[in-house]
Amino acid sequence: MFTPQPIGFVRSPYTGTKQIPKGLGTKHEAEGVLEIQPEFEQGLADIEGFSHIFVIWVFDRSQGVELVGTPPFDNRPHGVFATRSPRRPNPIGLTVVELLRREGRMLHVRGVDMLDGTPILDIKPYMSSVPPEKLKRGWLAEAEARGKKEV
Amino acid sequence: MFTPQPIGFVRSPYTGTKQIPKGLGTKHEAEGVLEIQPEFEQGLADIEGFSHIFVIWVFDRSQGVELVGTPPFDNRPHGVFATRSPRRPNPIGLTVVELLRREGRMLHVRGVDMLDGTPILDIKPYMSSVPPEKLKRGWLAEAEARGKKEV
Repeated sequence: MFTPQPIGFVRSPYTGTKQIPKGLGTKHEAEGVLEIQPEFEQGLADIEGFSHIFVIWVFDRSQGVELVGTPPFDNRPHGVFATRSPRRPNPIGLTVVELLRREGRMLHVRGVDMLDGTPILDIKPYMSSVPPEKLKRGWLAEAEARGKKEV
Repeated sequence: MFTPQPIGFVRSPYTGTKQIPKGLGTKHEAEGVLEIQPEFEQGLADIEGFSHIFVIWVFDRSQGVELVGTPPFDNRPHGVFATRSPRRPNPIGLTVVELLRREGRMLHVRGVDMLDGTPILDIKPYMSSVPPEKLKRGWLAEAEARGKKEV
């Protein structure tokens, strides 16, 4: 295996998890900055041509593992690998953000759902999408349907 | 930070990197199995409702870091964070696969581009796509355009 090292840190408007919008159909529109460490700035060459990027990061303020848990926006338990819960065997988060602009080693992005100060492990270009007609969203679609019925 | 631990291993037809299709427009159609360790099987509950999943894994046979490099299918160098190169500060790979079926702790999937025996760090549900009209693919689109002109 390997020893994870932060390539940078997220600057986000969120300082506590309760501030982060959660729930079905949540749109993450918050803007933030991915501040890359000076020694890795070279690795950003040509990133500005991509409209969207993957950010792989660490749930550094999460503790413990819960293999089965109930998300805040459902009343049924699900396996951790079928959710985005922070209580994972490896506390790794993944977010797709829109790249607004690059200023040196600062990437200004839209769509952050991380806490301020979150360590970043990796950035990758987002290259292709699954066509919507081929996408099934499991318990999430079911929970949405139940939610609509209850309204 | 944290100490990465494998939640399972990839069973793939590829035993050497040269066997893995690379290049522009490559479709990864190879089938494989994500074999999850027995102690994490509970975490797979409800995963079968999703058509596509993210697999976060380790480039365990890659060595060293190259902040700027030329991909096999382009003749220009790019920053590592604008490519899927294995020679990254944290040797983490990310692949979207189609979930064909689950048999206990075995996830049969299509679209593997990992070597046989690759350690898996995490699995997450793939929930939404970036609309194609909003997606820009940077140097990759440019390299494709150059490739077509050269043909």
